[in-house]
Amino acid sequence: MKIIEDISEMQSLAGSARGAGTAITLVPTMGFLHAGHEELLRVARGKAGFLILSIFVNPAQFGPNEDYKTYPRDMDADIKVALSSGVDCVFAPRPEEMYPDGFQTYTQVERLSMGLCGEARPGHFKGVATVVLKLFNIVMPHVAVFGKKDYQQFVLIRRMVRDLNLDVEVVGVETVRESDGLAMSSRNSYLDADERKAAVCIPRALDEARSALSGEDAQAVIRMVKKNIENEPLAVIEYIKVCDKDTLQALDRIEAGAMLLLAVRIGKTRLIDNCLFTG
Amino acid sequence: MKIIEDISEMQSLAGSARGAGTAITLVPTMGFLHAGHEELLRVARGKAGFLILSIFVNPAQFGPNEDYKTYPRDMDADIKVALSSGVDCVFAPRPEEMYPDGFQTYTQVERLSMGLCGEARPGHFKGVATVVLKLFNIVMPHVAVFGKKDYQQFVLIRRMVRDLNLDVEVVGVETVRESDGLAMSSRNSYLDADERKAAVCIPRALDEARSALSGEDAQAVIRMVKKNIENEPLAVIEYIKVCDKDTLQALDRIEAGAMLLLAVRIGKTRLIDNCLFTG
Repeated sequence: MKIIEDISEMQSLAGSARGAGTAITLVPTMGFLHAGHEELLRVARGKAGFLILSIFVNPAQFGPNEDYKTYPRDMDADIKVALSSGVDCVFAPRPEEMYPDGFQTYTQVERLSMGLCGEARPGHFKGVATVVLKLFNIVMPHVAVFGKKDYQQFVLIRRMVRDLNLDVEVVGVETVRESDGLAMSSRNSYLDADERKAAVCIPRALDEARSALSGEDAQAVIRMVKKNIENEPLAVIEYIKVCDKDTLQALDRIEAGAMLLLAVRIGKTRLIDNCLFTG
Repeated sequence: MKIIEDISEMQSLAGSARGAGTAITLVPTMGFLHAGHEELLRVARGKAGFLILSIFVNPAQFGPNEDYKTYPRDMDADIKVALSSGVDCVFAPRPEEMYPDGFQTYTQVERLSMGLCGEARPGHFKGVATVVLKLFNIVMPHVAVFGKKDYQQFVLIRRMVRDLNLDVEVVGVETVRESDGLAMSSRNSYLDADERKAAVCIPRALDEARSALSGEDAQAVIRMVKKNIENEPLAVIEYIKVCDKDTLQALDRIEAGAMLLLAVRIGKTRLIDNCLFTG
C-alpha cells in the first residue's frame, strides 16, 4: 500500500493508472476511521481496480469557532484500517500544499448549500465542494464513495458532479450505526459517558418517525421527533426538517422520497442524522 | 473535422484521445472568429496532437443589461476558419445542455474577480471561471490557449487551474491588432464608421504610455492616457489602472511586471485593452 503526501506524486500515479485503463475509486475522508468508513471502503473495494483513501481534515470547511484544531486525528490507526480494507493508496496531503499562499478559488453549489447544516455552518459546504473538487482533480477517480449520514453533503456533491460535467460516479452508502442505533461519527469520540447515553435519543426519535405514513402532516412528525429529543435534558435541537431527498426542499407532507434530517447538540458535540420515510 | 454539439459525445471522444496518449489542446472562444482567434489557433496547432475549438456564447458571463442576445454569431464563417486553421474538432454545445434546469454550481476566483472589469461587470468572471472549468472537464485538454487582450480573464484562469489542481497548461497569446493598432475583438463589429475611427484613440494612448520609464509615478502615466483618450469626444473611460501583471494589485510606480489596463466605451461599445511596460 502506498502512502502519498505530495499532490504532484498522487496526480502522476493517478494519471498512470487512468492511462493504463484501471478504474480508480476514491473514498474521501477526514480520517479517524470508524466502522462507517470501513463500510465505505468495503463498497469501494467492490468497485475499484485501484482504491484510494484520502485522509484530509479540510480547514476550508470549518468555521472560525468550530473544531478544526481539536478534530480527532490518528494516522497510525487509520493506516491499519486502510491495510485491512484492501486500500491500494492512502493520500494524505498537507494543508499548506492544498491551500497555498494566494489560494482564492472556491466552488459553491448554491441552493443546496443553504438551509439545514448550511444555516448553522456558513461557508461549510463551500469548503466541502471546493476540497472534493480538488481531490477529484488530483485523484481522477471514476467512482467516489460518500456516506449518507452526511446527507446534504452527498446530494450537493452529486449536484456538483452533474453541473460541472465531472466524469465521476458518485455512490452513496447507508449509515452504519452503533448497537444502540447511534450513527457512527468521528465526533462521537467527543461525548463523555453521560452524553453518549443521552445521544441515543436521536436514533430512537428517528425510529419512531420512520413509521410515519404517506400523507401525514410533516409538522406533526417534526413535533413528535422534537418532543422525543427534548425529553433528553442534555440534547439541544438545532434543526429538524422534512425535505425532498433530491432537492432538499421542505415538504408539507410525508410522501415517497421524503426524508427527515436533523442536527442536535449533545453538550458541545454537534451530531447529525437522517432517515428516509418508508411509509 | 468533427463538429460536436453533445456534451457526452465530446466527453467520450476526448476520453478516447486521452486514453490513446494524444495531447489535447483547447481554444475556448465565443465564436465570430477574427485574426486574433486565428493566432490562438496557430499557437495551439503547434502544441496539439488533437486541436479542439470550442464555440459557446456563455450566458453565465453576461449581466442582465449586457449584450448576450445581440453578441455577434456566425457559425458558418467560424467553421471555415476552423477548417483553414487545422482544427480537428469544433465543440459547440447548446446553452440548455450546459445550464440545465436546476443548475447551481459556480466557481469563483475571488480576489482576481474584483476590480477592473469585475467592477463594471459583477458576476462576469464567476460565469467565465465556471464555463471554462466545465469546458475543461468536458474536453479534458492538456493545454488551453487564451488571448491576453482579455488579460484579467487570462490571469484568473491561470489561478483557477493552480488552485483547483487542474492538470492543464494555460498558454497566453499576445493581442493581435488591426493595422491602426486597435485590438482585434468580436465587439469591434458593433462600431459604426465614426466610432471605428474614434476607437484608435485607445491604442494610440497605450503606445504613448508604453514608453514610460521604470520608477515613474503610475498616476502621472494614468493621467496622460486619460487626457489622450478624453481628446476623443466619442470615448468614455470606464477605468485606467496600473497593476502588477500577476496579482493585478494596483501599483504606485511603473516597475518590472507593471501593466496598464483599461476599459473604454465608444458609443455603446465597451472595449478593453492593455500594455505591459517595457521601460
